[in-house]
Amino acid sequence: MNKARITLDVALTIDSATSLDRKGCAVCVIDVLRATSTIAKALDSGAEAVYPVSGIDAARAAASELAPALLCGERLGVRPEGFDLGNSPLEYTKERVAGKRIVLATTNGTKALGRYCDADRLCAGSLLNATAVAEYLLSTGKDIILVSAGQDGAFGAEDAICAGLIAERIAREGAEYTDSAWAAITAYKACRHDMEGSVRKCDHAVYLEHEGFGDDIGYCSKTDIMKVVPVAAHHNGRIAIKKA
Amino acid sequence: MNKARITLDVALTIDSATSLDRKGCAVCVIDVLRATSTIAKALDSGAEAVYPVSGIDAARAAASELAPALLCGERLGVRPEGFDLGNSPLEYTKERVAGKRIVLATTNGTKALGRYCDADRLCAGSLLNATAVAEYLLSTGKDIILVSAGQDGAFGAEDAICAGLIAERIAREGAEYTDSAWAAITAYKACRHDMEGSVRKCDHAVYLEHEGFGDDIGYCSKTDIMKVVPVAAHHNGRIAIKKA
Repeated sequence: MNKARITLDVALTIDSATSLDRKGCAVCVIDVLRATSTIAKALDSGAEAVYPVSGIDAARAAASELAPALLCGERLGVRPEGFDLGNSPLEYTKERVAGKRIVLATTNGTKALGRYCDADRLCAGSLLNATAVAEYLLSTGKDIILVSAGQDGAFGAEDAICAGLIAERIAREGAEYTDSAWAAITAYKACRHDMEGSVRKCDHAVYLEHEGFGDDIGYCSKTDIMKVVPVAAHHNGRIAIKKA
Repeated sequence: MNKARITLDVALTIDSATSLDRKGCAVCVIDVLRATSTIAKALDSGAEAVYPVSGIDAARAAASELAPALLCGERLGVRPEGFDLGNSPLEYTKERVAGKRIVLATTNGTKALGRYCDADRLCAGSLLNATAVAEYLLSTGKDIILVSAGQDGAFGAEDAICAGLIAERIAREGAEYTDSAWAAITAYKACRHDMEGSVRKCDHAVYLEHEGFGDDIGYCSKTDIMKVVPVAAHHNGRIAIKKA
């Protein structure tokens, strides 16, 4: 092979320094519970595009500007008053979202996408589409950073487990990987024989279960059930996420 | 048991948010390669105190102010011109350091100690004294944060593996633990049958090996060879680390 080996890094929290410069990299943001799972499901159900925004007011403004668009998302896990859909991927059926623009208010996933929006390529990964995302990242030929979005700057194990699954697929192809990618792969390997059970033990899953979103955890734990790759691009000062 | 259960958290990088408030916690900073291993060895060899400082100029100033004191430490891994000792724990023998004050210039370990200096209790942990440190942390009765110092804000696997070893000892006593503590314990469990081999694969170990410090890696990988617990306290505007 004449091809130079690629390097794979994982940001274990959104504030972790990475050894690679994101501007030359293909970056994948991961927020399994639930933003990037919801984005995958929405696009797989035929939504035209997802516009992630931070906060309820920004979401209302974006939905008005992008009209007609569905106003969707959560605050502290729950669908705000007047919103069309919450942040549960199970709500994003073909009947509801096919052909539509989705404005999605989330906290952690949007923050991570915003922080990495100057990457050479930017996509959103989840367990639902992990292998498809790994193949897309490899196809770019760029060095790769996987970003485990977590909660409020803290580490979220479900995101690191998903990063580890994607990292394991990439490492198999001979990529060099950093300490943090090793840690993510190790976390994934400890869980792979019971993904749903492992995800249910994570701190944010315990919170969501308590809030009545137990079904979402089961759904978001399903691995490789879709081939959609959500890719982010700048669009009139916003991030628009569409199928690759 | 009437005793309230303690909670255990791990900061996987020095910039990671923690779910616990450090001001009410017992905090242990971990920089296996090599600051906190060197601190353990120095105190175990009878040094009176270790004063960690950031940077070469600050070290010279501190050594002059605290005279008589040994001027020690590293820049980019190497002993600076005019320094008495470098940052290799093997240099800190009884003959050289017993009864002496040590000013230690390091980068990552000192930064992490400084960032957590407002903790209720602050100590320094390494593989050399992991179980003794775990027992000390448990004895405080406080919630516990283990800080994996890493390199330049990035994750360092050897520090997370050590955090996982200490966390495993604490979790055994019934502590609740967060996602990041689980990840550290998982990393440790993946390595425990070959600590030295695992540490040698870490990014910073590869760098140190290349710089000629391979013996340090072997030494810093030894587990539970001493019972010293280095505890930090404020001393005239500085951090002074002494035996508990």
